[in-house]
Amino acid sequence: MTTTREPTPPDRTPSRPLTIAQIAELAGVSPATVSKVVNGRSEVAPETRALVEDLIREHGYRRQKKRPTAAPLIELVFNELEGAYAMEVIKGVEHVAREHGLAVVVSSLQEDHHPPATGWIEGVIGRRPHGVIVVFSGLTKAQHEQFKTRDIPVVLVDPTGDPGHELPSVGAGNWSGGLSAARHLLELGHRRIGLITGPAHALSSRARLDGFRAAMDAAGVPTDPQLVRQGDFSAEDGLAHARSLLAMPRPPTAVFAFNDAQAMGVYQAAHEMGLRIPDELSVVGFDDLPMAQWLIPALTTVRQPLAEMAAAATAMVVAIARGESPVQNRIELTTGLVVRGSTAPLVA
Amino acid sequence: MTTTREPTPPDRTPSRPLTIAQIAELAGVSPATVSKVVNGRSEVAPETRALVEDLIREHGYRRQKKRPTAAPLIELVFNELEGAYAMEVIKGVEHVAREHGLAVVVSSLQEDHHPPATGWIEGVIGRRPHGVIVVFSGLTKAQHEQFKTRDIPVVLVDPTGDPGHELPSVGAGNWSGGLSAARHLLELGHRRIGLITGPAHALSSRARLDGFRAAMDAAGVPTDPQLVRQGDFSAEDGLAHARSLLAMPRPPTAVFAFNDAQAMGVYQAAHEMGLRIPDELSVVGFDDLPMAQWLIPALTTVRQPLAEMAAAATAMVVAIARGESPVQNRIELTTGLVVRGSTAPLVA
Repeated sequence: MTTTREPTPPDRTPSRPLTIAQIAELAGVSPATVSKVVNGRSEVAPETRALVEDLIREHGYRRQKKRPTAAPLIELVFNELEGAYAMEVIKGVEHVAREHGLAVVVSSLQEDHHPPATGWIEGVIGRRPHGVIVVFSGLTKAQHEQFKTRDIPVVLVDPTGDPGHELPSVGAGNWSGGLSAARHLLELGHRRIGLITGPAHALSSRARLDGFRAAMDAAGVPTDPQLVRQGDFSAEDGLAHARSLLAMPRPPTAVFAFNDAQAMGVYQAAHEMGLRIPDELSVVGFDDLPMAQWLIPALTTVRQPLAEMAAAATAMVVAIARGESPVQNRIELTTGLVVRGSTAPLVA
Repeated sequence: MTTTREPTPPDRTPSRPLTIAQIAELAGVSPATVSKVVNGRSEVAPETRALVEDLIREHGYRRQKKRPTAAPLIELVFNELEGAYAMEVIKGVEHVAREHGLAVVVSSLQEDHHPPATGWIEGVIGRRPHGVIVVFSGLTKAQHEQFKTRDIPVVLVDPTGDPGHELPSVGAGNWSGGLSAARHLLELGHRRIGLITGPAHALSSRARLDGFRAAMDAAGVPTDPQLVRQGDFSAEDGLAHARSLLAMPRPPTAVFAFNDAQAMGVYQAAHEMGLRIPDELSVVGFDDLPMAQWLIPALTTVRQPLAEMAAAATAMVVAIARGESPVQNRIELTTGLVVRGSTAPLVA
């Protein structure tokens, strides 16, 4: 199945990225149109834009001039602007960006529209930011390519994708967080532990589950599959799953919710069923959002240093924008169990 | 006391704003330096900048060319990036900004530094935004002037300043919110009602207090000054004041906290003292943040439509940037009492 490669026609030169003029010729459009696409301007027909992007992806794009100076901006992109979690991330990014004289543009991919509004990525490119920080990667492969061809660095925070991803990323010790939550509950004597996980596509959730199981296996305690419920990281979902878990003929004596919002739902379910936390039900969360200490009883939870993670991602993206190579492609910050009032020894 | 005005020297022309060249001459610096100050560039000595700003404030500044095109940005400025409150505002601004093809730059005035980092306002001016939205006005008079002389419109959200302020603003019905909270508690039979207000400089807090008192006066129930405690809108503060209120020889039977965070502190104090909510203590909050419904019992609170207020402010700033005059200089959105499980009839 060996194929002989034809000598490349001189006007294609795939060994070198194409100039704007060459892309224009291949696409049958004016160089001005190609320039508009490259610079994220909006006044180009979608089909033309797609054609030009395809050619850039295939052949690469060679700047004829020096890259225009980046604007003093960092783009911070969420799937959804919601909750105290996002606020911690914004704080961390703003803090480091400010030290570097950069302003932070905050946007969300998922607004009311599915699929995301066209024009979002053109807007980002047109603003010529120093870099882009993506929380919970919702970027497509094509979008990654678009940033790459414009030399706009992208760093992921807590990606749901593979940590071996080509993009630099900052995460937390999810596996060890799951492990420490399980160990804590096992030490208190719990054996039937209900789990409310995150969504299936979230690798962070999978890592927490695996860490949890590792501790259970080490203790010789089987994990009952009936006690493992897949959630979506919302309080509503935590409530629904906790109601179901606590209504089982042999209900769990403890619940490990994979984020603090779900843990709030577990509190609600326990309250409805007249179960006292921690005497009759132990609860562990994940994140340690500011409100966790104000729940009654205060929530035992695995602390995820969100602001620090966001700060680390910002420092990374600034360094890459300066032309430095990141020391590592993946940084994981440590999680730690914060023991408060929602966990207690199992009463036999 | 009539004074005769001297004929103005021709090189001062205070009746017309000065050109860059005239400002440069008065300041004894180069026109390039004045231009840098006007455009928010950073490489100017602080004393020179102050001198040029003083001259602009005194005489006005006349653009020689058309105003440079505004960048597709809206600036959203907080005193402090904290809490679910700020997230609701960001959501509201982002939603409307996106409809207008504008990106949102989020920043805070109060970071770790007091006074705020120099350079913040130069950064904003340098980015040439369509407009600026300020939450809880922390801007100085001089900063307002700087935006005004650059034709950058500013709109305030829930300002702690005077609603009769020259800047357009969006607020909520704080007075009527305080009134409805008091009426609700009075109808339930409460007479000794503890108050945990916001800080003294917050007019919103004063309006809530006045509305509360109006209902109490109408019912012929005196407001015991000992039951009125000045808080700072934090949960910690709510806890401290509630501990003190509930330890009084004649403690209140209900507490109206002027935001939801403080109400969480009241829950904590009640829990510590073994008081059941709502049977032994009724609690009302203000804001209706997303977590209010997840407290146990769910919090009765005055809903403040934060995302809608932010959206209205964004629409206003966009309209002004387009050259439209705002229909009104002050918009107040309605608050409404949301009755949940934290309030109950007084048991005699």
